[in-house]
Amino acid sequence: MKAGNKTLGPRLRVVLDTNVAIGPGQVDLLEAIAETGSISKAGRSMNMSYRRAWLLVQRMNAHFHSPLVETAKGGNSGGGARLTALGEDIAACYRQMEARAAEVLEPEMERLRGLLASDTEDKADSAAS
Amino acid sequence: MKAGNKTLGPRLRVVLDTNVAIGPGQVDLLEAIAETGSISKAGRSMNMSYRRAWLLVQRMNAHFHSPLVETAKGGNSGGGARLTALGEDIAACYRQMEARAAEVLEPEMERLRGLLASDTEDKADSAAS
Repeated sequence: MKAGNKTLGPRLRVVLDTNVAIGPGQVDLLEAIAETGSISKAGRSMNMSYRRAWLLVQRMNAHFHSPLVETAKGGNSGGGARLTALGEDIAACYRQMEARAAEVLEPEMERLRGLLASDTEDKADSAAS
Repeated sequence: MKAGNKTLGPRLRVVLDTNVAIGPGQVDLLEAIAETGSISKAGRSMNMSYRRAWLLVQRMNAHFHSPLVETAKGGNSGGGARLTALGEDIAACYRQMEARAAEVLEPEMERLRGLLASDTEDKADSAAS
């Protein structure tokens, strides 16, 4: 029901342990770090504060047997960040799971979409106001 | 990474349209309404304010071609609420999708669990503090 769902289809949150889960936010952040080479740039690209991005990275690093993101300190550039092999592996594994879920759940997705109101946008707006 | 994930395994958020999604919160609420016969009791059982529970119900009702929850006004009891056939159908369909996802994603879940730190709890606490 939240606004801002850009991709239609099933979104996964993989709960691995009582307080360890990998979801779209974590994986988008990992991929943005791989792309930008920086935690702060990656956070900014997702409209996330540096503090929040940094905390997410610290938690992910602590939850797995070795870090998913490594940072390099120093220099005028303020260092950078990149994914470790484990970080790349976990991001890729999550995307595979997402694709597999989308594939096997397509019949039910189709059925649910057929139950939607025809004028979803308008009705949603008036229900929210 | 959020605390309070009680059930291990994949959790699904089914994005049906730009601003229409069915996730664990919506379905837990539907099931709690079926069980308690009341939106306020259902909300309370989920530590959700009456306002939030009521808004979620209004939005779900507006997003589908007919309501998922119907309310009865009047009497000293303040009326009650129950699921329509469509509400029951959608809640059941979501649970089926959840079970199917858990089944097909079990190999990857197993692999990811094998990559966790052995002392997840302690490390997560220190990372969060």
